[in-house]
Amino acid sequence: MNHAASLELILGGARSGKSRLAERRALADGRALIYLATGTPGDAEMTDRIAHHRARRGPEWQSVEEPLALGAALRAYARAERCIVVDCLTLWLSNCLLLDCWPAQCDALFDALDDVPGRIVFVSNEVGSGIVPLGALSRRFVDECGRLHQRLAARAERVTLVVAGLPLELKNP
Amino acid sequence: MNHAASLELILGGARSGKSRLAERRALADGRALIYLATGTPGDAEMTDRIAHHRARRGPEWQSVEEPLALGAALRAYARAERCIVVDCLTLWLSNCLLLDCWPAQCDALFDALDDVPGRIVFVSNEVGSGIVPLGALSRRFVDECGRLHQRLAARAERVTLVVAGLPLELKNP
Amino acid sequence: MNHAASLELILGGARSGKSRLAERRALADGRALIYLATGTPGDAEMTDRIAHHRARRGPEWQSVEEPLALGAALRAYARAERCIVVDCLTLWLSNCLLLDCWPAQCDALFDALDDVPGRIVFVSNEVGSGIVPLGALSRRFVDECGRLHQRLAARAERVTLVVAGLPLELKNP
Repeated sequence: MNHAASLELILGGARSGKSRLAERRALADGRALIYLATGTPGDAEMTDRIAHHRARRGPEWQSVEEPLALGAALRAYARAERCIVVDCLTLWLSNCLLLDCWPAQCDALFDALDDVPGRIVFVSNEVGSGIVPLGALSRRFVDECGRLHQRLAARAERVTLVVAGLPLELKNP
Repeated sequence: MNHAASLELILGGARSGKSRLAERRALADGRALIYLATGTPGDAEMTDRIAHHRARRGPEWQSVEEPLALGAALRAYARAERCIVVDCLTLWLSNCLLLDCWPAQCDALFDALDDVPGRIVFVSNEVGSGIVPLGALSRRFVDECGRLHQRLAARAERVTLVVAGLPLELKNP
Repeated sequence: MNHAASLELILGGARSGKSRLAERRALADGRALIYLATGTPGDAEMTDRIAHHRARRGPEWQSVEEPLALGAALRAYARAERCIVVDCLTLWLSNCLLLDCWPAQCDALFDALDDVPGRIVFVSNEVGSGIVPLGALSRRFVDECGRLHQRLAARAERVTLVVAGLPLELKNP
């Protein structure tokens, strides 16, 4: 029996409307809703962003936070009758690089995706279309982010790029 | 009677050909043409860019400049028989943030859009697909730019992303 | 008799999968394969990237390197029965700007494209969709890159934007 989750990937630039699209798609899916935030309220600016997103979502969402062990969190929360929105992968990658647990956490994510049931909608930032950043860490971040997007996109059933709140379908069953 | 202007939004990266596409679309519209520049010839580099754009446009264009009060400028110049190209929104946003008159000028723009007649083609830079900038002001710029694009895109009849001079339609009646 | 090469342009952000797509398209073309790298193994990081790309390609590829005189290299290697993948234009532009031989090398490229036979697939980075960079040289890089993309896209038979490994056709015969 195949328990692999059905995956969707939503990409977009900063403030492109990607979280909002992910929420609409998850609502339309009809399952119980979980919002898995990879950001943690570590500073005032991030606290504001989290509050802004939370205020928009309704009470039908259960919110959980996991900055690093995303694969483990999906194993804990994924159920066939649930749709999990993971928002966002770039912050998760950034957390893992800073705490030096990449690529182990990345492998753990893809292992989990083969095992867990239900539906998962990933939100992630396009970060590779600006000028190549100067620092070696920033370049590594951009590289790993691109690799992660390619790997997830190959595995996902649906991939959408959001520009100015408007969806551009990259892969659509 | 509904006087609301008909809007078009043309997005693209730096030197993607977005101004040129806006000019072609405005010319095809058939109305009298106004080019509303939000840049001012404040330094040599900007003077060059403005001259470069101006040389390309023909004598059928009336040129006006307004770095901040875009809503007021549209109220002054918009007529049912005119098509106004606003080039570009990112520079206008940048001007407003630097002089601390955002979001008042943004609200004034959207108020004006409900009242003025004619056709308006907005040109704006995609700035949110690179790595997240380090400074708080730059991050605010990217955030406000994304919000502005979403808000205008929702209101516009047509939205186009330009890549390498080639149009990718995001919203098309 | 028209000897002008048939051109394809593949654009994408960092690690978007654009080189891989170029290789697949070149393989499908059926001609003898040449990989023309514009990067040179000048530092450890670049050496790693070149080795990574080279390991992926099979023995059916002949590899050549030319960091500056791209037009001359195409004149030397292009044949009607060959498909050349040029990877990548942004690195070439960067090399030329640093050694102050732009726009002469750019003109030499377009002159060569009118004269040489065969098929050429160009790979290039989208760099203009992030925040406008602070330095004058970086801004010039972004500007020239955008102009180059527009000029090549106008001349190419096929233009594709790659996002997360997935192709978005911008121009397709």
